[in-house]
Amino acid sequence: MAGVVKSAGTGSELVLLDVFGSPFAQRVRVALAEKGLAYERAEQDLAAKSDLLRRSNPVHGKVPVLLHAGRPVCESLAILQYLDEAFPGTPPLLPPASDAYARARARFWAEYADSVHLCGKRLWLKAARDDGEEVVEPEARAEMVAVLRVLEAELGEKEFFGGEAFGYVDVAAAPFAAWFLTYERHGGLSVAEECPGLAAWAARCARRESVAANVYPPEVVYELVQEYRQWVLARK
Amino acid sequence: MAGVVKSAGTGSELVLLDVFGSPFAQRVRVALAEKGLAYERAEQDLAAKSDLLRRSNPVHGKVPVLLHAGRPVCESLAILQYLDEAFPGTPPLLPPASDAYARARARFWAEYADSVHLCGKRLWLKAARDDGEEVVEPEARAEMVAVLRVLEAELGEKEFFGGEAFGYVDVAAAPFAAWFLTYERHGGLSVAEECPGLAAWAARCARRESVAANVYPPEVVYELVQEYRQWVLARK
Repeated sequence: MAGVVKSAGTGSELVLLDVFGSPFAQRVRVALAEKGLAYERAEQDLAAKSDLLRRSNPVHGKVPVLLHAGRPVCESLAILQYLDEAFPGTPPLLPPASDAYARARARFWAEYADSVHLCGKRLWLKAARDDGEEVVEPEARAEMVAVLRVLEAELGEKEFFGGEAFGYVDVAAAPFAAWFLTYERHGGLSVAEECPGLAAWAARCARRESVAANVYPPEVVYELVQEYRQWVLARK
Repeated sequence: MAGVVKSAGTGSELVLLDVFGSPFAQRVRVALAEKGLAYERAEQDLAAKSDLLRRSNPVHGKVPVLLHAGRPVCESLAILQYLDEAFPGTPPLLPPASDAYARARARFWAEYADSVHLCGKRLWLKAARDDGEEVVEPEARAEMVAVLRVLEAELGEKEFFGGEAFGYVDVAAAPFAAWFLTYERHGGLSVAEECPGLAAWAARCARRESVAANVYPPEVVYELVQEYRQWVLARK
């Protein structure tokens, strides 16, 4: 995070540097939609990083980066918290300041949501290493089921992780819910059978306007992952 | 993070489950000292995890966990933020709510501080894999120097990462500063030569009462790491 960065020059107060398909960038888009904040997207090419991206996130060179009046905020969860704090008049993602314990729990579970993505990558990327037939790795599958069950236990009987409100943990996890189909096909598992409550939550998220407009449908995620796997296989 | 957990029964409002030498637990101890909050320590044995630890952190089973009136808060950085929010009358670690941008930056850099520990582990643990002579790995050393330089650039001319105040990033990074000597001896590098500003910051941290009382001196860290390496070697 450097100082003030000149964006594309359109004068937007909020500019999101992101990449088509990044679930971490989708978190920010969902959050911006939930808050009703207008912004400009500046699609990035990670294979040929722009000067704007390098100047905005010199440490990691990753997306998403949110430029607010030219000042870059990096890391998806830090951006979500920033949006709560910089735009206090918008619907909050985290529980209110008066409930410090609920906020700490939400921070814990939002971080935990990343486990889904890491496990999933192991599932579909390891399978890609066997060029030919697809191999289901029992350990990776078991690990994924375990992670999903932990999340389901936290969800419990609630509508959303945020209770009745679609909150911080929901925004952090919703982009990964669209990957469930990909995990199922590569892992030979059924989220609906293993974790019916979590599958129902994923369906609720998918129907939500902020998610529907900013997160790819599961079939599209699967196709994109297939393309990526082909690309990985071709380089072997 | 489960529901209310019964602690050892001493009735302390704040109980810290930690482990002798954990830099992540030290973050919490430094923060508690900075805030002047009294607490009870409950030393844990990670080789034989207590029921208290398992109930308090069923997901990861790791320290530190802070029990506040029996309710567990997990993950060191989430605990630091919790302390700011649950004890608003104490000296804050993060910048004020009115400066959302400074808060986002602090969250970014506190996360980045973990890179030091990860790099360092690669440095001294990889070396341990060659049982016999110590081998300096040029890549691991270069990576560590790069990480330290990034931190030094962020520190700039400031007294602390938090500016004149010893803040969130300082608390997150100070325990690792006590490891610099270990990195130097295993990596064949000199922090003072590579990053004189960061070395001066480490010295300022070490003189601070909250750090001196809760973070081991560099020589002790080095000895503990040596013991750990012997233990690793003995198991090969």
